[in-house]
Amino acid sequence: MHELIEKGTPWTLKEVGTDPEVIKQNETLFSLSNGHIGTRGSLEETHLTPEFSHSKSTLMNGFFDTEPITYGEWAYGYATHHQTTIPIPDGKKMEMKYDGEVFDLTSSDAKDHNRTLDLKKGILTRSYSWKTENGHELEVSIERFVSYDYPEIMAQRFILTPKDDNNSLEVSFELDDLKSMGKERDKEDDPDPRKKEQASRRFESDDLEFYDADMLHIKTHASGLHAVVGNRVVTDNDVHQQISDKNRDSLSFYSKANQTIVIDRFVAYSELYKEESLTENIIDNLIRTLKNVTESGYEKVKAEHISTMESFWEHSDIQIDGEPALQLGLRFNLFHLHQAAGRDGKTNMSAKGLTGEGYEGHYFWDTEMYMFPFFLYTQPEIARSLLMYRYSILPQAKERARTMAIANGALFAWRTINGEEASPYYPAGTAQIHINADIAHAIYSYGEVTGDDAFMLNEGLEMLVETARFWLEWGHFDDNRGGAFVINDVTGPDEYTAIVNNNYYTNLMAKKNLAYAIEWIEKRRRQLPDEDFNVSQDELTEWKKAEEHMYLPYDEDKQLTMQDDSFFHKKVWDFEQTPKENYPLLLNYHPLTIYKHQVCKQADTVLAQFLFLDDFSKEQKKRDFDYYEKVTTHDSSLSRSVFGMMASQIGEEKKAYDYFMDTALMDISDLQSNTKDGVHAANMGGTWMSMVQGFAGLRVDKGTLHFSPQCPSEWERIVFKVRFQKRLIQVSMTPSSTDYQLVEGDQLTIIENGEKKTL
Amino acid sequence: MHELIEKGTPWTLKEVGTDPEVIKQNETLFSLSNGHIGTRGSLEETHLTPEFSHSKSTLMNGFFDTEPITYGEWAYGYATHHQTTIPIPDGKKMEMKYDGEVFDLTSSDAKDHNRTLDLKKGILTRSYSWKTENGHELEVSIERFVSYDYPEIMAQRFILTPKDDNNSLEVSFELDDLKSMGKERDKEDDPDPRKKEQASRRFESDDLEFYDADMLHIKTHASGLHAVVGNRVVTDNDVHQQISDKNRDSLSFYSKANQTIVIDRFVAYSELYKEESLTENIIDNLIRTLKNVTESGYEKVKAEHISTMESFWEHSDIQIDGEPALQLGLRFNLFHLHQAAGRDGKTNMSAKGLTGEGYEGHYFWDTEMYMFPFFLYTQPEIARSLLMYRYSILPQAKERARTMAIANGALFAWRTINGEEASPYYPAGTAQIHINADIAHAIYSYGEVTGDDAFMLNEGLEMLVETARFWLEWGHFDDNRGGAFVINDVTGPDEYTAIVNNNYYTNLMAKKNLAYAIEWIEKRRRQLPDEDFNVSQDELTEWKKAEEHMYLPYDEDKQLTMQDDSFFHKKVWDFEQTPKENYPLLLNYHPLTIYKHQVCKQADTVLAQFLFLDDFSKEQKKRDFDYYEKVTTHDSSLSRSVFGMMASQIGEEKKAYDYFMDTALMDISDLQSNTKDGVHAANMGGTWMSMVQGFAGLRVDKGTLHFSPQCPSEWERIVFKVRFQKRLIQVSMTPSSTDYQLVEGDQLTIIENGEKKTL
Repeated sequence: MHELIEKGTPWTLKEVGTDPEVIKQNETLFSLSNGHIGTRGSLEETHLTPEFSHSKSTLMNGFFDTEPITYGEWAYGYATHHQTTIPIPDGKKMEMKYDGEVFDLTSSDAKDHNRTLDLKKGILTRSYSWKTENGHELEVSIERFVSYDYPEIMAQRFILTPKDDNNSLEVSFELDDLKSMGKERDKEDDPDPRKKEQASRRFESDDLEFYDADMLHIKTHASGLHAVVGNRVVTDNDVHQQISDKNRDSLSFYSKANQTIVIDRFVAYSELYKEESLTENIIDNLIRTLKNVTESGYEKVKAEHISTMESFWEHSDIQIDGEPALQLGLRFNLFHLHQAAGRDGKTNMSAKGLTGEGYEGHYFWDTEMYMFPFFLYTQPEIARSLLMYRYSILPQAKERARTMAIANGALFAWRTINGEEASPYYPAGTAQIHINADIAHAIYSYGEVTGDDAFMLNEGLEMLVETARFWLEWGHFDDNRGGAFVINDVTGPDEYTAIVNNNYYTNLMAKKNLAYAIEWIEKRRRQLPDEDFNVSQDELTEWKKAEEHMYLPYDEDKQLTMQDDSFFHKKVWDFEQTPKENYPLLLNYHPLTIYKHQVCKQADTVLAQFLFLDDFSKEQKKRDFDYYEKVTTHDSSLSRSVFGMMASQIGEEKKAYDYFMDTALMDISDLQSNTKDGVHAANMGGTWMSMVQGFAGLRVDKGTLHFSPQCPSEWERIVFKVRFQKRLIQVSMTPSSTDYQLVEGDQLTIIENGEKKTL
Repeated sequence: MHELIEKGTPWTLKEVGTDPEVIKQNETLFSLSNGHIGTRGSLEETHLTPEFSHSKSTLMNGFFDTEPITYGEWAYGYATHHQTTIPIPDGKKMEMKYDGEVFDLTSSDAKDHNRTLDLKKGILTRSYSWKTENGHELEVSIERFVSYDYPEIMAQRFILTPKDDNNSLEVSFELDDLKSMGKERDKEDDPDPRKKEQASRRFESDDLEFYDADMLHIKTHASGLHAVVGNRVVTDNDVHQQISDKNRDSLSFYSKANQTIVIDRFVAYSELYKEESLTENIIDNLIRTLKNVTESGYEKVKAEHISTMESFWEHSDIQIDGEPALQLGLRFNLFHLHQAAGRDGKTNMSAKGLTGEGYEGHYFWDTEMYMFPFFLYTQPEIARSLLMYRYSILPQAKERARTMAIANGALFAWRTINGEEASPYYPAGTAQIHINADIAHAIYSYGEVTGDDAFMLNEGLEMLVETARFWLEWGHFDDNRGGAFVINDVTGPDEYTAIVNNNYYTNLMAKKNLAYAIEWIEKRRRQLPDEDFNVSQDELTEWKKAEEHMYLPYDEDKQLTMQDDSFFHKKVWDFEQTPKENYPLLLNYHPLTIYKHQVCKQADTVLAQFLFLDDFSKEQKKRDFDYYEKVTTHDSSLSRSVFGMMASQIGEEKKAYDYFMDTALMDISDLQSNTKDGVHAANMGGTWMSMVQGFAGLRVDKGTLHFSPQCPSEWERIVFKVRFQKRLIQVSMTPSSTDYQLVEGDQLTIIENGEKKTL
């Protein structure tokens, strides 16, 4: 795929030819989405040519079905149900019969086949010239986009130019074969836990109900979710015959040489809803939406879409001069990040966005720690929606805490869609209680960056309080450690070390979580002295005590931060004797074999230090970086970006650059060999963080914006914008200097490398 | 069930009446077995009266089927298949039709219904008087036993005395309904992991093949095991009509008042075998066996059985004067222990013996640590067979070590039948690597007690070497602990504390395992200097270094032995706030909730100290006992006996007595409320250990037999025999004195409380 970048321009990904492997790979890369619906970049006639497809799914954020989890051996409190995203009817499908022949890429004679994803416009185009067996030619051009302006709408335009007269041309559209939906995915006998658990049940006929006007009502078997899909086909050309039944629209034309036929198609996907009785309303709304867009017409809807995309890039682009390949890779990442986020406060961002079914479509800590910063600093309203999703599942988090014998507070699920824990392996699931503090950290950052006190003093504070409460009960003051507050039997971010005591990252984040709750409770008491928030002075005192006495493991002899109490007592993994094909270790070694060694899947202590850069001396950070880098495999896609950012901040320029190049091009060059299952959305977020928080060193400390820029000497110039407390600031960074420009808002003082600058 | 003891005599368990609950409970207690086959104590007509039965299974030691284990989330090296004991055709079934009426206990008029299990003879009898609706009476008496002399044979005698003339009496026998076998078990929606995983597949018609002469060949679906079952019915009485087809024998008589009809039945169960081609041979052998027993006749076979049982009691009984209820309970335990042991070197003892399908019929460390001592000191040939079973699965143990990335050595499966790991939950499965040392400990003890050098220098040594090798690779010399040998990420016996570093029990046992291997390698080198055993001097040196530097965690401040590195850093479980119904904790709290507290399911450190009583000062043992007793729930049936034995040895007489009474009567009084699933064989072994190793303080130290008797003042006298180095010694213990008598063998010096005594 690498060629694709080098030959491309900084705004487009181009595919030329008909190599099935390339087209398959691009099914993921060419995915289009708007955070509500996402559709993979498969060919319109994939149903005829399965060899060109890995999975042609269309997905709806938050649409999943459940199945009971089967355990080899059950234990109390285990997650009870799989939640598995299931594809919805795929509205991309088209079948074309010209001159008596059905087109498919395998057996038809297609010349100049190419596809282009225009990142700037958010449009995927395809064109080719088809010669039938009788030697008659048809020029074909197809466009596709998923609208941000109408979240329900996917639009397609088909431009067909016959080169001869009087051949019959029949074009048919239908929703995908509903019963097998998702089942045509490449079957692999692969137990890789990172891939999706294939939902064994898809839709059955009972779950599908056709209404008039091409309206299909779908419902899940077990999770109680509903949605409606509608379909409209429009053409201004002379139609010889049109046959429409509920699932199929078929148009016949007679060709006139060089007279172009244009057909537009709008497929509308309603919001998902839970009460069947709402169906009629939902259908009415969807009909209205379809009427709007057909009346506006394809051109106008497309123009709106392009304008919205341009406005997105205006505020969110990172411009990198003199590096077209990297520039493209970077934009590709931002494009997909932007596509992945749920915007309705009821959905979030899954680990693969809406580009694939990997990880079952679950939401993880990835959102808050890797993807959230991008939105926070460029589109804070989306950041708020993402936090509102967490607020919407707070009741389930409280319930989960009760299951874990915690009487007060909340424990957010490690992986979930509907808020209930769906991780069937608790040592790398429920044990990762740091997710509570990760969410608290995102909330606090949101408050600092946006100044949105309305949220912070209510929903935000409620979450800070419930997560803080959790820590007090999970941990305890350990008399054997002079009363330090310890947190036992947890798993930190590094999943190659599980069920340990006092994971440094977890403890530090819990300390911050407590501090955040204390700060905002006190702020609320000042601002709303008469309104009780149900936190007693005694409770606050306990929080302060725990915060102050939080145990943070440190090895005085080695002068190193300890990942957990026992990390240095483990044997260092024998990297030299480990053949390359044995990575990732998790697929080739028993968990105990991994856990009993010093070996990290990903950044853990280094991440903790990166998040609070100013709390540690440069020497300390460097020592820890050097130590942990040696024992980290980066088997997680979340790892390299963090090491890269830290490298940048401790003066390891070469390493910073190398790590960055790996992360920036991870999916576009399929570094993890599993891009076909979907993009690595968290790593894409990591790319933005690497640029802005790594190389530019952006961070907020005590309400003030800091920068410590380190532009790699390989690059001419980097330009990006960030929003901060109602300002818009443009940063231009070269290896020798950095310029800050206030684009919108009031005067602001920032700190660059310890020195104040007023913009 | 308690009444049953108090009203009984010290040799018999008697059941009177027709209370379904009592009869159900006794299905377990009245089980009969010979280590090869076992049959639960259900009624002959249970197929007509399911309300009297929990499970009427007949089981064959080692006969199981496999199914793939389904995991919520897979990981490398996980156990791949369930191994589940499956019931074999049940040969107890009988149907009786008298005077036109079919007898069943629910609807028939049965007077004086009673059953007696004679422990001394190993025979279960049943009798009642049945009056039909027409008022005609039939006296019924049924006997049943499972032969030790003919391991294949289960025998029944039916003695039927009509009280009137000329009524038709039809008696039918068949093998149980084969397709539903085992499925009639009480259905409970109970995820308790301690219960058996119900094998979802039983026999299907393909797995059943009838041969001539009532010979049924059965095979498992997946595990590739075969067996043959044969059936013979014999009577000397006038038979009016006899109908025999392959699965059914039916005899008709006309009654003559007070003239007794006697029918004998022998059901023969072949050994299990793996090659289908052996079937004809196996059938021939089984026909021969059936011919032998039918020619000998029921009376003779029964007399042989009784004689064998008497000889067993002669050597294995523990007599306790003045306590008839306890005496009965004790004998009941020894009876079942004796019944449970596989004697063929290919099978072992399952956690429930052959009395139920609990724990899927798996073999655990229970054998070596709780049941083995009884056999070692009373029937060492059975002890040897049990060790030979481990030797037979050594290849699988080596393979398992490879899976765990251990290049040399063996790791025995935590739970298994065929030698492959079958534990689907590795934190309380594979992580309990102490099983390696447990087996080594049993081997070493066997060598000390029997002097069987032929075994020790070959099979025994090979196992000592392979287990020793394992420790060297799993653990390592920790520079951060001054080069001490540490063993990380294991679970000790206490399953309420999992995946810890340096579990005291594990480390001490590993140290001993190394010492055992070193001692016997050196012994072999002396005895067979020319025969290499494939252990280099370098390897031996490493073992010695690890043995010498084994890290044994100890808290100098508290003067307490640490169960593991982090045990004292955990919060003590809030026992006061834990309602009674929340025990056992494992059914009511998430594993993490349990693991992050100081709370023990069972003896762990205390067991380590009990096994090496002379390595610790009495004060140390008392401090540790006091500490760990407070945090132990005894949710495992393996716990109380160990605490009791230690109590006895540290002068806690009252506690020793109380713990003992709980363990001795555990099944007979259903203390754990799950006796219906089968007896707790390990606890039964614990009873023998409590008497002999607890109260009498028997142990071997440096080849010498030690005693430190502490007969509870509640008892008049305890008498038992032990075998030691080809001697038979009788010990008579009263609260004031102990007498040792050499019954067989050469003069021997023993040590009683530090003082030598020559017998």
